[in-house]
Amino acid sequence: MLRNGDDPDIPPVATGSHIDAIPYSGKYDGVVGVLGAIEAVNALRRSGFKPKRSLEVILFTSEEPTRFGISCLGSRLLAGSEPLADALKGSVDGQNVSFFYAARSAGYAHDQDNLSSVFLKKGSYSAFLELHIEQGPLLEEEGTSIGIVTAIAAPASIKVDFEGNGGHAGAVLMPYRNDAGLAAAELALAVEKHVLESGSIDTVGTVGILDLHPGAINSIPSKAHIEIDTRDIDEKRRNSVIEKIHHSAITIAKTRKVKLSEFRIVNQDPPALSDESIIKAMEDASEELNLTRKLMISRAYHDSLFMARVSPMGMIFIPCYKGLSFILPFVVSLDLFLLQC
Amino acid sequence: MLRNGDDPDIPPVATGSHIDAIPYSGKYDGVVGVLGAIEAVNALRRSGFKPKRSLEVILFTSEEPTRFGISCLGSRLLAGSEPLADALKGSVDGQNVSFFYAARSAGYAHDQDNLSSVFLKKGSYSAFLELHIEQGPLLEEEGTSIGIVTAIAAPASIKVDFEGNGGHAGAVLMPYRNDAGLAAAELALAVEKHVLESGSIDTVGTVGILDLHPGAINSIPSKAHIEIDTRDIDEKRRNSVIEKIHHSAITIAKTRKVKLSEFRIVNQDPPALSDESIIKAMEDASEELNLTRKLMISRAYHDSLFMARVSPMGMIFIPCYKGLSFILPFVVSLDLFLLQC
Repeated sequence: MLRNGDDPDIPPVATGSHIDAIPYSGKYDGVVGVLGAIEAVNALRRSGFKPKRSLEVILFTSEEPTRFGISCLGSRLLAGSEPLADALKGSVDGQNVSFFYAARSAGYAHDQDNLSSVFLKKGSYSAFLELHIEQGPLLEEEGTSIGIVTAIAAPASIKVDFEGNGGHAGAVLMPYRNDAGLAAAELALAVEKHVLESGSIDTVGTVGILDLHPGAINSIPSKAHIEIDTRDIDEKRRNSVIEKIHHSAITIAKTRKVKLSEFRIVNQDPPALSDESIIKAMEDASEELNLTRKLMISRAYHDSLFMARVSPMGMIFIPCYKGLSFILPFVVSLDLFLLQC
Repeated sequence: MLRNGDDPDIPPVATGSHIDAIPYSGKYDGVVGVLGAIEAVNALRRSGFKPKRSLEVILFTSEEPTRFGISCLGSRLLAGSEPLADALKGSVDGQNVSFFYAARSAGYAHDQDNLSSVFLKKGSYSAFLELHIEQGPLLEEEGTSIGIVTAIAAPASIKVDFEGNGGHAGAVLMPYRNDAGLAAAELALAVEKHVLESGSIDTVGTVGILDLHPGAINSIPSKAHIEIDTRDIDEKRRNSVIEKIHHSAITIAKTRKVKLSEFRIVNQDPPALSDESIIKAMEDASEELNLTRKLMISRAYHDSLFMARVSPMGMIFIPCYKGLSFILPFVVSLDLFLLQC
């Protein structure tokens, strides 16, 4: 709670983001939405503005799926998810550290049977706002100052494992092989094919992880693990792509005589719509600030996707260098947006 | 030197193999050729046999390319290679430990400018023999006891790097991507295609290593590294496959707008032929032992490939479970083969 409002009876306005980031992703990803939030509240304080509603800054934990394989862990829990609270009881990271050990080490989760105590009630906030870099090239290319997010695309992630017999790269002749690595390579290309065939620019699909076992130059891969990320603003179209990917995985396994030992949809979230009144507030504020603006879809997903389940939600995008997490010189005016809420 | 011969003026007969192995490869790979050699010499000693030629057992270091990226490091050096001796001056492992530091830690290579002191002169040995598991399924399937190797296929290894712009898996739309991972997946499948198109059962090609960077589910791969192993008993045919793979790498990079930042042929060794008199000795011994035998090609390569450069060479294969490094119950009779040499 950074700033108390005049009227303690109406729910606060919250803003914030996360400070973790995927490897080599640059330094602005969620950080700008946290530091920007703190600075915005401070700027309002310095200006003498007395808000009617209290203002809160939230720093979400584990927005990235890098450690426990679950994205937006903090905001998902805040938004209330019993299945997630249950799943976390058995979750470990790559070094076999349990989620609860990690949480306790950071000073949280003293009672692992009571994770639901963090669930937010619907209406806990009057509004939730998140400032974020676009993570795409559009604002930069068009020279537009502000992106007003109208919806967040629906993400899904899938883990796939193929298993074959492996063997020595020299000794096992081609007809005797069932190469798990080539099955994975084929599936990676099939993901791209199905995404492109959706016919919509809004469908994307990515294989960001592809691990071969044992991973030696003279070993035919006996196991291959791939992780697929696919998103769309149309949930039905995205789910149809997932079905096609699943079908391809089955066909490839059959043709290459490898075992499809896992095809697991880790998460398959619905899209979220920004709140109309927050969109209007953002439009008014950018008008007042003389900033060019663009209504746009967030194709990356954010803590806002989950906060939208318990609060009216809005997001402000700012341009970034070549779609990467490198911000362009730009005056962040989150304070003015907060003022409108 | 395990056994002195009666005539010190004629070069010894050597036998041996290696004890390192690729990850998860089973426990018999080179080990059986080292322990088998020691036991064979002991058995001859116990039997009271007095050899004319001295018998030596050799344990080669680093047959596998796993640590410094160079296969058969020990036997390559013994066979005499100035370029390799030079290259090792700058070689480091995955933990940035230099080859010379590692060698010194193991009690070797006190003078890094004098690696050529280990080079063997041609004729240092009357014969070199290696006992090894087949690492293929043929002997097991046919129920044949002994494989007599007539030639070792010519191996080549290639390292390839693709580079793209990466970006966020949600935010960068498909037409704006240049995905280094998909380029690598395409090349892996192209390796298989070119190998199959050679039309010969003797051509093999494998992608055992495929690494994506940054390797996160929500990141488009900005870098991909693959390592290719290709072999043939026909050097010219193998080199033509390498040329086609190179051509594919260039075409894929162009089509996918990624950079082919490396296409490096790490080694491209010629095949080796076993010595006629050693083949004859092996045939005679298996006849005497009443063992079924099969003349065959070694499609995996071995320290023998390099020992053949300085000595008459022969190899004995024994069956192994499903072509893997799991030996079948079998009485190893290397002593009788040594007796024939």
